Amino acid sequence: MNRNELIKQILSKQSFLCVGLDPDTQKIPKHLLDSEEDPIYEFNKQIVDATAPFCVSFKPNTAFYEAYGLSGMHSLEKTIQYIKLNYPNHFLIADAKRGDIGNTSAMYAKAFLKRLDADAITISPYMGSDSVKPFLEYKDKWAIVLGLTSNEGSADFQQQQLNGKELYLHVIETCAKWGNENNMMFVVGATKVQMLSNIRKIVPNHFLLVPGIGAQGGSLQEVCKYGLTKEIGLLVNSSRAIIYASNELDFAEKAANEARKIAEEMKIILDNNQ
Amino acid sequence: MNRNELIKQILSKQSFLCVGLDPDTQKIPKHLLDSEEDPIYEFNKQIVDATAPFCVSFKPNTAFYEAYGLSGMHSLEKTIQYIKLNYPNHFLIADAKRGDIGNTSAMYAKAFLKRLDADAITISPYMGSDSVKPFLEYKDKWAIVLGLTSNEGSADFQQQQLNGKELYLHVIETCAKWGNENNMMFVVGATKVQMLSNIRKIVPNHFLLVPGIGAQGGSLQEVCKYGLTKEIGLLVNSSRAIIYASNELDFAEKAANEARKIAEEMKIILDNNQ
Repeated sequence: MNRNELIKQILSKQSFLCVGLDPDTQKIPKHLLDSEEDPIYEFNKQIVDATAPFCVSFKPNTAFYEAYGLSGMHSLEKTIQYIKLNYPNHFLIADAKRGDIGNTSAMYAKAFLKRLDADAITISPYMGSDSVKPFLEYKDKWAIVLGLTSNEGSADFQQQQLNGKELYLHVIETCAKWGNENNMMFVVGATKVQMLSNIRKIVPNHFLLVPGIGAQGGSLQEVCKYGLTKEIGLLVNSSRAIIYASNELDFAEKAANEARKIAEEMKIILDNNQ
Repeated sequence: MNRNELIKQILSKQSFLCVGLDPDTQKIPKHLLDSEEDPIYEFNKQIVDATAPFCVSFKPNTAFYEAYGLSGMHSLEKTIQYIKLNYPNHFLIADAKRGDIGNTSAMYAKAFLKRLDADAITISPYMGSDSVKPFLEYKDKWAIVLGLTSNEGSADFQQQQLNGKELYLHVIETCAKWGNENNMMFVVGATKVQMLSNIRKIVPNHFLLVPGIGAQGGSLQEVCKYGLTKEIGLLVNSSRAIIYASNELDFAEKAANEARKIAEEMKIILDNNQ
């Protein structure tokens, strides 16, 4: 999916919500575990169906599938196929946080952008240019580079001063040169909103993928205040607050309610952004 | 496998060689592709059998399996099971370069250290403490943190000055505090040997996993000059130079020859290290 198509989807739905699909068998409804052959896939399918009207993107995090071995990877493949078949206009992000030397990153790019045919993959930038560039070689596909993450550990390295500038700013500024606003986005945590204005000075037009709304405590209003652009430029992710809104029979309905609430808030923000 | 057992294996074999298992169907012998149901597994099995006498460790890189989807992941599982069953004293590294926020890193740790039962997993440190610590919670298992990698891109961030010190030194110094020499190692590329002495000042006893010997051009002598300790402290990896020494019927024999050559060089170095 290219940038114009993504913007069009957002404007038509009046939502820039991304729903994170992080299935954890400790948390998903027990009735699915008891009755379904592939409870992870069934959980995802119902969450996707229920929340699709309110979001423009889905983001499965690979860790939550790899933890279940081959059967988990099979659930991931089936989930991605289900979304691509039934919701082809939803932007599909493989949240994999990969990155290795050039020839190895090329293998990861093939795995996620070609084989699984995701629209985007999240990338860890620590290994530099040749670890990032192979993800930029697929038409209408995206590398989403970790900039400033939402977790406590982002203080350890990302927020340290490097050549008189925080590392995350250096990373975003440098990586932005390897790609452009049509094939690269950045992860910027919602818990660090005050830093968004610095980031917008460096990448005024790039899309930012913003996790940390909801369970991690970030505020949508604050994120938009500093991050929203004329062409939107934001995908805001919520995972746990939506998908685990209930672990009873009504889990999909409750997930839809949570997604709807966020989408309604987004609509008001977008109306005011005209 | 704990530190003492690893050192014992190295001393008994007089080798600290790690063989990287990066199977690429563009490079593995054609006769395997034509005749085998799972050519990747068959390739690995023959490489493992041929090189096991000369090495103490195997390191499958997950990218080279994920690129083939579920069937590739199955080949990885089978390869790991084969090594654990037939070569239980070889130190098994999942070269996965994972890392995410705490609860997600915990899922990766489960996937690789519990489910696949690897001895170690490589970790990308960009997201900081909570992304690294979950990998330290398994007894006799190891987190191998990216410090200074062997690729060109290591100049982009790792070698930049952070608070008056290169980022890679800051990363190694900081991460070392989260674990200890019994559960943490660092990746240090063989192409950056002159920087090894700085690293040894910070982590005099930690094991270092050193890729980049052979195909990437690093020298074993130089690595040992700066990196070897009284308790060895080095695992030196070679992938392509060994496993792709030939792509004919004799590929396993040629791989063994390459591994033997490195092991012989290591024996001389260890003799002089007494």
